[in-house]
Amino acid sequence: MTNKIPVKNIAILTSGGDAPGMNAAIRSCTLAALHFGHNVYGFLHGFKGLLNNEFTALAEQDVRDIIHYGGTILKSARCPEFLDENKQQLAAENLTKLHIDALIVIGGDGSFCGMLALAEYYKGQLIALPGTIDNDVDGTDHTIGFATAVNTAIDAIDKIRDTADAFERVFVVEVMGRHSGFLALNIGIASGAEQVLTFENFQNPGVELQNIAEHIKLCKEKRGASSYLIVAAENLWPQGVEQLCIDLQAYANITCTPCILGYIQRGGSPVAKDRIMATKMGVAAVNAINADKSMIMIGEISGSINEIKITQAVKHKKQVNGELLMAQNSILDIAELAKINKL
Amino acid sequence: MTNKIPVKNIAILTSGGDAPGMNAAIRSCTLAALHFGHNVYGFLHGFKGLLNNEFTALAEQDVRDIIHYGGTILKSARCPEFLDENKQQLAAENLTKLHIDALIVIGGDGSFCGMLALAEYYKGQLIALPGTIDNDVDGTDHTIGFATAVNTAIDAIDKIRDTADAFERVFVVEVMGRHSGFLALNIGIASGAEQVLTFENFQNPGVELQNIAEHIKLCKEKRGASSYLIVAAENLWPQGVEQLCIDLQAYANITCTPCILGYIQRGGSPVAKDRIMATKMGVAAVNAINADKSMIMIGEISGSINEIKITQAVKHKKQVNGELLMAQNSILDIAELAKINKL
Amino acid sequence: MTNKIPVKNIAILTSGGDAPGMNAAIRSCTLAALHFGHNVYGFLHGFKGLLNNEFTALAEQDVRDIIHYGGTILKSARCPEFLDENKQQLAAENLTKLHIDALIVIGGDGSFCGMLALAEYYKGQLIALPGTIDNDVDGTDHTIGFATAVNTAIDAIDKIRDTADAFERVFVVEVMGRHSGFLALNIGIASGAEQVLTFENFQNPGVELQNIAEHIKLCKEKRGASSYLIVAAENLWPQGVEQLCIDLQAYANITCTPCILGYIQRGGSPVAKDRIMATKMGVAAVNAINADKSMIMIGEISGSINEIKITQAVKHKKQVNGELLMAQNSILDIAELAKINKL
Amino acid sequence: MTNKIPVKNIAILTSGGDAPGMNAAIRSCTLAALHFGHNVYGFLHGFKGLLNNEFTALAEQDVRDIIHYGGTILKSARCPEFLDENKQQLAAENLTKLHIDALIVIGGDGSFCGMLALAEYYKGQLIALPGTIDNDVDGTDHTIGFATAVNTAIDAIDKIRDTADAFERVFVVEVMGRHSGFLALNIGIASGAEQVLTFENFQNPGVELQNIAEHIKLCKEKRGASSYLIVAAENLWPQGVEQLCIDLQAYANITCTPCILGYIQRGGSPVAKDRIMATKMGVAAVNAINADKSMIMIGEISGSINEIKITQAVKHKKQVNGELLMAQNSILDIAELAKINKL
Repeated sequence: MTNKIPVKNIAILTSGGDAPGMNAAIRSCTLAALHFGHNVYGFLHGFKGLLNNEFTALAEQDVRDIIHYGGTILKSARCPEFLDENKQQLAAENLTKLHIDALIVIGGDGSFCGMLALAEYYKGQLIALPGTIDNDVDGTDHTIGFATAVNTAIDAIDKIRDTADAFERVFVVEVMGRHSGFLALNIGIASGAEQVLTFENFQNPGVELQNIAEHIKLCKEKRGASSYLIVAAENLWPQGVEQLCIDLQAYANITCTPCILGYIQRGGSPVAKDRIMATKMGVAAVNAINADKSMIMIGEISGSINEIKITQAVKHKKQVNGELLMAQNSILDIAELAKINKL
Repeated sequence: MTNKIPVKNIAILTSGGDAPGMNAAIRSCTLAALHFGHNVYGFLHGFKGLLNNEFTALAEQDVRDIIHYGGTILKSARCPEFLDENKQQLAAENLTKLHIDALIVIGGDGSFCGMLALAEYYKGQLIALPGTIDNDVDGTDHTIGFATAVNTAIDAIDKIRDTADAFERVFVVEVMGRHSGFLALNIGIASGAEQVLTFENFQNPGVELQNIAEHIKLCKEKRGASSYLIVAAENLWPQGVEQLCIDLQAYANITCTPCILGYIQRGGSPVAKDRIMATKMGVAAVNAINADKSMIMIGEISGSINEIKITQAVKHKKQVNGELLMAQNSILDIAELAKINKL
Repeated sequence: MTNKIPVKNIAILTSGGDAPGMNAAIRSCTLAALHFGHNVYGFLHGFKGLLNNEFTALAEQDVRDIIHYGGTILKSARCPEFLDENKQQLAAENLTKLHIDALIVIGGDGSFCGMLALAEYYKGQLIALPGTIDNDVDGTDHTIGFATAVNTAIDAIDKIRDTADAFERVFVVEVMGRHSGFLALNIGIASGAEQVLTFENFQNPGVELQNIAEHIKLCKEKRGASSYLIVAAENLWPQGVEQLCIDLQAYANITCTPCILGYIQRGGSPVAKDRIMATKMGVAAVNAINADKSMIMIGEISGSINEIKITQAVKHKKQVNGELLMAQNSILDIAELAKINKL
Repeated sequence: MTNKIPVKNIAILTSGGDAPGMNAAIRSCTLAALHFGHNVYGFLHGFKGLLNNEFTALAEQDVRDIIHYGGTILKSARCPEFLDENKQQLAAENLTKLHIDALIVIGGDGSFCGMLALAEYYKGQLIALPGTIDNDVDGTDHTIGFATAVNTAIDAIDKIRDTADAFERVFVVEVMGRHSGFLALNIGIASGAEQVLTFENFQNPGVELQNIAEHIKLCKEKRGASSYLIVAAENLWPQGVEQLCIDLQAYANITCTPCILGYIQRGGSPVAKDRIMATKMGVAAVNAINADKSMIMIGEISGSINEIKITQAVKHKKQVNGELLMAQNSILDIAELAKINKL
């Protein structure tokens, strides 16, 4: 079967925020492409590399031992100038001159928009792999890097819990996620936080302030909780979690300590889930190239490889799992509902 | 809605090999049950505790801060005497005398067989949660503990790779899994092993010995690999991986170092996947009790809660994901197929 | 020998910021005291517990399995009211009424000042153990918790390096340490940071701004560094590291990303160094009690147990190791000195 | 000052078992040497590289980002043929022909014996750095890699403790250390093991078997210990820890589970201690070369750099810290001595 596959020149680039597992995806794309006899090139610095013709050939030894490294050996970059049509055209010309038959882009929805723009001028195959810690890409249950970011955050929060317990204190931990709540909700449940503030369950600051204050008092005074952790999505509370602490002090005389986990969530050795999923997706990307497909994103739905059009991946907003929200409610609000139940 | 639910006495026990996330499941079952106003008890030492009436009431403060701990606060034990019908009857009598309306058992298929036996005599509700690092339970994509065990193993193998690289040496790493290949296959792919020996792709020792020897030589001599890692499932190679090393030396004069990861795979703080899944399953178990269900196992299929009859869970053998096997082949056997491809 | 030691009532408390290894110290004090037949009590919430008579008896099973836990099972608290002499007198009266013969305080120099105040009224033995991540206690090479905090920080910075490398970006990472540079200097060297800003090598913001800007340009432009990490001590740069980033942008048009590691540095499972040192110190504390000593702090100098008067421990400011500063200079400023060298 | 130092050609090699921190030492030697304007070369595969002229120039970018990697970028190897005087002479000739002025060897005492042999024929400077996880090198409190190996082992044993607790079982964990007890004693204390079997406190199998059996029964029956961990040095018990388990079963009907930690102890990202000490030692090695010293080993005693003759480093056997043994005894044997004390 494999001996009928025509040899192609395949290029790979990583774009947008780096995510753990991008190297595993680069490795897998490269090894699978070499497996079928293709030539493989890596463009550096995301779309910038397309404009500057910054690239390198990728051989087996370049990628053999990178599955466990965070970051991306191909570097990444923001590339606002790619919004300019002249630049999109230039990138297409560069790819064509280099006889690149297929380009694999590992990144988030911003990068996929760049691909759509590039498609206006470039006639080769374009394959997207979802790589972002935020998990905010439709057509895949998980994006590459999401699982690692969740685990990095819970390791950090497990440590913060030590201090919160020792001092019987309230902490507000801000986690990443841009404008979606996947990270906050998963991190909140996995760290056993007493409160998770995320887009999906947020009403308005006034109502929330009252709810939080009541729940803190309930937990600390009636249930004997020694500490109280709030996990909050970034970009949620007006002016951030430091302001939330100020607001809680003003509203209910509750002293909270803010913690912003920040960039540690973006790096680190990928967990097995990201390594394995990235490996499967890389193989699927090359299979799609072999099948002459284009303009698709490789995802994973229910544990199996899924292909959707890139246009769809950027159009729909993926929703968080309803069961997670339900689980959170059942776990966090014990006493009140129990009280109601007993009436 | 919730105020119509009758108050029940719910008991929990953990049985069989311990698995990271069992405590998260205990916590979730307890908090969700308290949420609905139920009373919660924990039996100690698995089925043994049923025979000896070893139990304790579980309150919120007992489980609040255990989501991140390995092991099980309820202890576990093997209980061969439970094969005796008199013992099964005794357990049922004890549960009945204590007015236990529902029993949640967190364990593997051995424990589920115990539940089937108990059901002959006990008329309360029986709910199973799949907790074992081996992932060899049907009706759920993942068992509680599996994800953590995979991650523990790849952390260990990442370290072994350091020495293998420094000495340009061949290592054979034996991982757990009893008689199924979930652990070996996932660990092998996630650690970037050059060879994965597991039940699903194993022919016979003679053929495998030849294949391994050729692949090692190919990788070391032609592809410039500095190290070569074999991940092997336990109970696979006749007389174990130490014998495999002896066999490789005898057959092809290849020196290998055997490593048996052993019990570190069973402990440790659970990764987010196990914490979240165990939390969801615990809530689902209580929901099932509220709905007067019995003799079911709570699983997770494609990210959503799934219920199957316990009888089914113990009958079928779950198969490893075909995509994983395919990914492994594409990644590991580059040069040969590339060569064929170019003919 | 041991049968001549009179039985005493020994109390333990932890005070000030919690530090990993405090539990190991509590365990060791307790086990060693029980070993000699003493009775052991733990006061809760630091000095507050002395005022409120909050205490618990400590038995072997209470401390057996806590060596690997962060935080402190005895809780900690700030206790500003202990500055009041009436409160100091009350604490002494409570201890005397309870027939406490010796009190072991695990904390930092603020806690030791509290001990000096208490000594005016309390006639029992007072033994101090240095427990703080900041390492700013004289009479001991290391304080309990310091080694763990350094390791937690370098794990975090290793992750930040991934993103810094991927984006070829400058990051400024603020680490704890109050007003001393032990954490910053050790973390800076161990994480391979290109620049360490700490009290010991700081001139003034104007000079530093120029030095940093030149060094960044040198590293990025001439030496091909893909990333540049600055580790900065907290309380060093006027208005903090966010201001430093603004200043660097204004002064030299260099874009930096600030990261404040924060409270993760205070928690987590202690590394071996803290577990072992805390264990040795706990045994030494009990030996000192057996020898009827008082008003001393147990330290470790050059790997051996050291005793100094508490009055001395709070008086002197410990200096950072000169070899570390020298090592930093040799490692960080390669090219310039090499150039001078070649003239 | 620095501009008077003559430019030299400095070579580095790593030899013997790999140890975490070797890369930090290579980095530091290289950066410090470049700092003074020297040229730096790395020989591959230890002494084998000297025989085969396998070497590479080392520039700043080769070592910039390796401080956190386990293993050794220069590879290591056993080199039994170096016992042959002709080979020693060949190595010296190769070094001389390449105009290598100084050779830094990072390794253990076997490697240092190789240096002594080489010194018979090679007239350049020879500087040793102690790199081995076993810590069995005199003239330094710690060897590079020791601290990391201890921490890797306690992380593993913390996990094993989870299972031991869940099943209330006795585990025997074998740790590395060749023929010295540094690893076993430090790991045993840091993991809170109930029993540490190491060369320094070992009498004979018969006596030990009785002691262990009595202590296990005491802990499990009288003190309510739920688990019991024995940490045993490799090469201690006749025929290994599996035999020890068989012996305990036969002698006292105690069921134990053996665990051999194995090669995970040799790899992994170095902890801060190893990174910092290796960095200091690397700078000191270059300083020693600048000062025209030779035939010395750089060590660290009491936190400060120490130089001793290589002849001495290989002659004396370093003893374990007496305080550690004392601490172990006070912690582990509580009840017995308490009983004696009360007579």
